[in-house]
Amino acid sequence: MNNKPRARELGLPLPGTPGTYNAITDVPGVEVGYCTVTMGAPEDYTGPGSPFARTGVTAILPRGHRRSACFVGRHDLNGNGELTGTHWMDDSGFLHGPVMITNTNSVGVVRDTTTQWMVENRFFHPLVMDGETIADCGYFYPAVGETWDGMLNDINGFHVKPEHVLQALESAKGGPVAEGNVGGGAAMQCHGFKGGTGTASRVVEERYGGYTVGVLVQANHGARDKFQIAGVPLGLEIQGAQQVWNSPKVKDGTGSIIVVVATDAPLLPHQLKKLCKRVPIGIGLLGGGYESGSGDIFLAFSTANENAYTATTTTIQILGDDCMDPLYKATAEAVEEAILNAMCAAETMVGRDGNTLFALPTDQVVALLQKHGKL
Amino acid sequence: MNNKPRARELGLPLPGTPGTYNAITDVPGVEVGYCTVTMGAPEDYTGPGSPFARTGVTAILPRGHRRSACFVGRHDLNGNGELTGTHWMDDSGFLHGPVMITNTNSVGVVRDTTTQWMVENRFFHPLVMDGETIADCGYFYPAVGETWDGMLNDINGFHVKPEHVLQALESAKGGPVAEGNVGGGAAMQCHGFKGGTGTASRVVEERYGGYTVGVLVQANHGARDKFQIAGVPLGLEIQGAQQVWNSPKVKDGTGSIIVVVATDAPLLPHQLKKLCKRVPIGIGLLGGGYESGSGDIFLAFSTANENAYTATTTTIQILGDDCMDPLYKATAEAVEEAILNAMCAAETMVGRDGNTLFALPTDQVVALLQKHGKL
Amino acid sequence: MNNKPRARELGLPLPGTPGTYNAITDVPGVEVGYCTVTMGAPEDYTGPGSPFARTGVTAILPRGHRRSACFVGRHDLNGNGELTGTHWMDDSGFLHGPVMITNTNSVGVVRDTTTQWMVENRFFHPLVMDGETIADCGYFYPAVGETWDGMLNDINGFHVKPEHVLQALESAKGGPVAEGNVGGGAAMQCHGFKGGTGTASRVVEERYGGYTVGVLVQANHGARDKFQIAGVPLGLEIQGAQQVWNSPKVKDGTGSIIVVVATDAPLLPHQLKKLCKRVPIGIGLLGGGYESGSGDIFLAFSTANENAYTATTTTIQILGDDCMDPLYKATAEAVEEAILNAMCAAETMVGRDGNTLFALPTDQVVALLQKHGKL
Amino acid sequence: MNNKPRARELGLPLPGTPGTYNAITDVPGVEVGYCTVTMGAPEDYTGPGSPFARTGVTAILPRGHRRSACFVGRHDLNGNGELTGTHWMDDSGFLHGPVMITNTNSVGVVRDTTTQWMVENRFFHPLVMDGETIADCGYFYPAVGETWDGMLNDINGFHVKPEHVLQALESAKGGPVAEGNVGGGAAMQCHGFKGGTGTASRVVEERYGGYTVGVLVQANHGARDKFQIAGVPLGLEIQGAQQVWNSPKVKDGTGSIIVVVATDAPLLPHQLKKLCKRVPIGIGLLGGGYESGSGDIFLAFSTANENAYTATTTTIQILGDDCMDPLYKATAEAVEEAILNAMCAAETMVGRDGNTLFALPTDQVVALLQKHGKL
Repeated sequence: MNNKPRARELGLPLPGTPGTYNAITDVPGVEVGYCTVTMGAPEDYTGPGSPFARTGVTAILPRGHRRSACFVGRHDLNGNGELTGTHWMDDSGFLHGPVMITNTNSVGVVRDTTTQWMVENRFFHPLVMDGETIADCGYFYPAVGETWDGMLNDINGFHVKPEHVLQALESAKGGPVAEGNVGGGAAMQCHGFKGGTGTASRVVEERYGGYTVGVLVQANHGARDKFQIAGVPLGLEIQGAQQVWNSPKVKDGTGSIIVVVATDAPLLPHQLKKLCKRVPIGIGLLGGGYESGSGDIFLAFSTANENAYTATTTTIQILGDDCMDPLYKATAEAVEEAILNAMCAAETMVGRDGNTLFALPTDQVVALLQKHGKL
Repeated sequence: MNNKPRARELGLPLPGTPGTYNAITDVPGVEVGYCTVTMGAPEDYTGPGSPFARTGVTAILPRGHRRSACFVGRHDLNGNGELTGTHWMDDSGFLHGPVMITNTNSVGVVRDTTTQWMVENRFFHPLVMDGETIADCGYFYPAVGETWDGMLNDINGFHVKPEHVLQALESAKGGPVAEGNVGGGAAMQCHGFKGGTGTASRVVEERYGGYTVGVLVQANHGARDKFQIAGVPLGLEIQGAQQVWNSPKVKDGTGSIIVVVATDAPLLPHQLKKLCKRVPIGIGLLGGGYESGSGDIFLAFSTANENAYTATTTTIQILGDDCMDPLYKATAEAVEEAILNAMCAAETMVGRDGNTLFALPTDQVVALLQKHGKL
Repeated sequence: MNNKPRARELGLPLPGTPGTYNAITDVPGVEVGYCTVTMGAPEDYTGPGSPFARTGVTAILPRGHRRSACFVGRHDLNGNGELTGTHWMDDSGFLHGPVMITNTNSVGVVRDTTTQWMVENRFFHPLVMDGETIADCGYFYPAVGETWDGMLNDINGFHVKPEHVLQALESAKGGPVAEGNVGGGAAMQCHGFKGGTGTASRVVEERYGGYTVGVLVQANHGARDKFQIAGVPLGLEIQGAQQVWNSPKVKDGTGSIIVVVATDAPLLPHQLKKLCKRVPIGIGLLGGGYESGSGDIFLAFSTANENAYTATTTTIQILGDDCMDPLYKATAEAVEEAILNAMCAAETMVGRDGNTLFALPTDQVVALLQKHGKL
Repeated sequence: MNNKPRARELGLPLPGTPGTYNAITDVPGVEVGYCTVTMGAPEDYTGPGSPFARTGVTAILPRGHRRSACFVGRHDLNGNGELTGTHWMDDSGFLHGPVMITNTNSVGVVRDTTTQWMVENRFFHPLVMDGETIADCGYFYPAVGETWDGMLNDINGFHVKPEHVLQALESAKGGPVAEGNVGGGAAMQCHGFKGGTGTASRVVEERYGGYTVGVLVQANHGARDKFQIAGVPLGLEIQGAQQVWNSPKVKDGTGSIIVVVATDAPLLPHQLKKLCKRVPIGIGLLGGGYESGSGDIFLAFSTANENAYTATTTTIQILGDDCMDPLYKATAEAVEEAILNAMCAAETMVGRDGNTLFALPTDQVVALLQKHGKL
């Protein structure tokens, strides 16, 4: 974890009440692990397969190493991306293991290795028929999302290996969560600046249940000219820090954002989908959400109802829709803050062909917000 | 109720075990009411607005006159039709009142009148905020489906009136259910013969929970040349009984089927959607499902978990997906039988312009099935 | 049309370039008509069915009185509402007639009357089979949306009548569009102030095709405490103008927003759905989108490809996804401005039981934005 | 290709007119390649990672090695499975490369290797902005489906390697297509017998456009007791050939079916989804579609409109919905026949732990159909 101040420490105008760590891990049981893959120097890149990498893997374990399933729901704002495992989420409403995030071209190795890890760690459910346990039943459709880090990374070199996946899974833990150039978010761009991994959380008032909503984003989306905070057009007003593109050009704004929402509120699958539908508001408040080249893909899981997956019948707790309003607001707020946290933590990176993304100049951000009466 | 034998009484090859009435009312609490609107003789039809009608309204009350909501899910095979109220079903997973079926052009009057009836019968939920009941909360998005009876009926005469809607609602009751030319199904065609309203049910084995699945269809779909039972191409082999179309022609097969599935199994909204996805199999076994001119629109509700609608939190029972297989089969079987029951009960009808649909010649059906070794 | 200044005339910070009228009618061919139903004085209200009404009907004709179909797509942010006709939109990708908006309990009468009007105005397509025109084919699933005006209106009095529907349809025209307390938007609330009907448009740069995006909203959504413009928390800072609720209380924020997006860009149905997915960003920029009691329901149609509906084969023009980015931004911007236009045009209204919604105090809005450095 | 007679050669009752090869390759341009992975003998299996494999990879190239995209649509009957790449299909309506099928645990290696192959074979589109080609734009979200072959194969040994994927891709060709124990379908079960890969096609009448619909299935689904042909309950009546399960038991019927539909009809994405919605009818005619343990996942692509993917605007041909009826029937028929072809071609296989699936005893099938008057 680097020592750069987070968005809230900079005093950026952010509503709501975060949890202890202002992180997805504020939802009890949620653990996050990373493997950041760094190899060689920019000059080592001479084409696909060079000894040069800036990439990684992020692992989110909804219940740590416990194996019980979570209810899950999801929504895409724009589908120019990938998140595996969604057929089974849509069908069953269950998430049966970790949520992984990596670069676009490494989804497969992360998927197969996660499958193997789940098999070895016995992510199985007993299948009871006629009162008898007749089989161990596993659902190995790992959730693996991605964003494209090919501007800086040798993405066509396929540098993520099984050991990186296992390292991300095995290092998962609760508590504070590293941000910026870490894990799958190592080499991201966001609104034309250096992007990466970010997280935030909100705790809703006790009278609404006191539930926590935690968010983790891999932020690789957005155009610079649209970047704003609290209505201040920072993307237009910030001086310098212009990205350097020496490789053949890809459309500005090409990128994606994967958003993982966790909550301990006892929501059903269709209600978790409704949480995800508020994610675009959080993205839009900062000027994102308008790029057809983006995979804006979201999922939300609930850690309540640990015994909901059943081979027969069981009893669960549910929350009425009328109690969801604070959770909707909490989700949008946490998404906005998690993106800003990713940008504030990320550090300037020089990649293949000398392509460069500069860290958000937070001094300018603070000064401009002050000038506009926002701080 | 007429005295024509039902499909099962004719000995048609039908698998599975029906409930007491072999009707949707076998699901405890479900009630069905009709108003069949019959006015004038065919020769009274001289254009839209003539004193001539063959149409009606069907009402299905999931919990009779009790007001509590049901979990609901739905699926369309083909969307050339209407079922109102589905935005709220999709969003909340709840059905808050009756399911109504009528002709295409009368959906509005049925909808508004049902709203009024729900207001007057106090289909409200208390809205509790901060431990205090602060409002009566009603969701008045009635579910109104339709099929097109314009071949026989003066559909552009708009003959369904509010009193017909109220009569259908007020006459709803449990027990045996009339079939054929009744309610919204009065003037239907099905596979080129006279169609209408039909119902059937299945009870799954005790070891799978002993749940009941009940189905009611308004069957107005299918082309004659594709009609089959147990693989026997009856549509091609039945002699005579050719429909008479004197009005300007509409494509053969134009029509729709509304299917309402009820169950007492404790299913969640996404599981009820899964039940609906098996409805096309039941339709397809008889040769239906291939017409772009058809509104093949299905919903399924569960009468379990009477207290699932909550303004705060509550506890519900759920069933594991692994227990759903018998319910899937039960649904497809009951749909197949309900369509056949509609056709077996329907009687020859002469409509506007002398257009005529003939009752399915069940003697030929029986003889042909015998010839093909099916009886 | 009243003489109150529109949002842009007040100098509110609004990006982008509007069309001639800054209205949905900037999309060539689109026409808007209203019938505003006003009856009696507040003291005439003594319960449902009183001689008191504040409601209406709005009609949007995609191609005026021409009958050809438009490609259509749609998306719901929250489904606590109604928009009829969506099964056929989803299935066929076509919109075959007007889009109507009214109050929640009058959807039915608007639907049936619109059907009748479409029949009388011959919204039919020739059905060609085997090279021969064999039938006139009509798709009468009118699109009728609604929002709940029961705070001010005697909504359970069902005061919208067929003549009102016809008046809205027949009065439709291009050019400037009235806003505020008109048509279906007569008695709306928005963010705790008086809401109503609003419209706006954007023209994208010639190098992106020069297409127009027009939006019309019936704005009845949002909580006051969340209302903001350009990040300024106006809902918290505006003094006075507090709504008066004398009737039994309904949750604050209960309401809905129907958004109709029109464009002349040649988009396919799935691309029009993608436009609709950007509507929540426009709503969210002002602090809306967080209410479970809201029906946030959106549709978008394209007036390009007038001959796309075919009974055989035809040729159409399409636009690549990579050209859609400016349309996404245009949609979010126009939604934001249309909501503000509805609020700026709306006038204080006293309704049943003396319930009162006050017009947005635009002088305070301007002063507060100035104070925050936004003007 | 083995010499076992196909379903039609056995005289099974199958309606409709197939194309030249009665295969998906009857759609011009479509190519199919396989790599069947066979290693060791059953006694070599001593646990995960043994030198024993019965698995493989199937590659379907919509336009052979040409790179232009196809319109695509999809539908799941049951989602207990995986098909990657669907976010982008849903969002853009395009399929940008091959469709691959393998075993459940090898989806990742197939995905990454296919990505690499696409990069190397330059599956790129020029991205034109402001009249200038500014970038090469690639969409590397390969479509990789799977079914579970763990009954016979050492699935947890992860025996599919990159070279197998490349072999499937490189061997793709038009003309006759091998069936049964080949490619990804090597070790499948179907209705309790040996399943595998199957294909079939239909040509619709010239007056409906003369289009071809081709289907390829990887059939691993269905319970034996429900297996039927033309209504004859073969699963109950066939003697012997009972599967042998020595490993810890998994629920009977656990499996999946991936169905790929190809057509040269000029259909839009939402129309291709409609084709997929008819697939369950074809599955259901044979007694499948009722298993919650199954991933019944379908996609359909159109080879028409080769230039539909555009960075600007272009012109395409479309087909009216009213012309789709014959295509719906063709799809259901071809699915039914492709499943039977898979079963007829498959040969008895002994797998790990001596688990055994027996080839469908086609002599009994013929005899029973004769007895029931079906041949």
